[in-house]
Amino acid sequence: MSLGIIIVTHTPEMAEGLARLLRHIAKNVPVTFAGGNSMGQIGTSMSQVQLAVNTNEATELLAFYDFGSARRNVELASAFSAKPIHLYDVALVEGAHTAAVSLQAGVDRAGLDKQLLALQVKA
Amino acid sequence: MSLGIIIVTHTPEMAEGLARLLRHIAKNVPVTFAGGNSMGQIGTSMSQVQLAVNTNEATELLAFYDFGSARRNVELASAFSAKPIHLYDVALVEGAHTAAVSLQAGVDRAGLDKQLLALQVKA
Repeated sequence: MSLGIIIVTHTPEMAEGLARLLRHIAKNVPVTFAGGNSMGQIGTSMSQVQLAVNTNEATELLAFYDFGSARRNVELASAFSAKPIHLYDVALVEGAHTAAVSLQAGVDRAGLDKQLLALQVKA
Repeated sequence: MSLGIIIVTHTPEMAEGLARLLRHIAKNVPVTFAGGNSMGQIGTSMSQVQLAVNTNEATELLAFYDFGSARRNVELASAFSAKPIHLYDVALVEGAHTAAVSLQAGVDRAGLDKQLLALQVKA
């Protein structure tokens, strides 16, 4: 079992830029992302989320998203995925950053979940 | 007096993508951004923050940032700026989104500050 991170946002640039930052600070943590809809416009796309899930080399994923419809697409992708996907209703950038730093340092998911509680800002 | 938003992040893509989203949902709110260091690498740059401040057509700014050194560069830029700059220690994406939606809807800063309290996740 290995843990990876997926990022899902409403613009391609946000997901790409956040993934770039996470890969920089946590070189051993697999990070993949889906940003924008299928046309690269504002929105999200279930098939792009599936691609982020399938191309992530980890066997279990932590998902961070910006807004509601991104969350729904992660839930849909999760229903069709063999990999367990844990969805975090936390501040996107700050939560994903905390997760990347912690996973890189070898913190397990129970330990990480405790840290992320303080960043919970979504329903 | 008019209110605008500046975004400061450690990668150029994050700032650009978030600004794109805010401009889409809040067409009348001036949004400018600074992302990455002066070489376009991971970091932030005081001179780029100053550029975001100076090119924002609003007379008073709300600043949203990702991490510590971004905050410090906003503070420095603020010290040299004639425009009042209000720094928010809130979840970057969720806070800036809330601010954009609220300003677009005509909410004043006192009203917005109340909404942003729930998104405070930084020291």
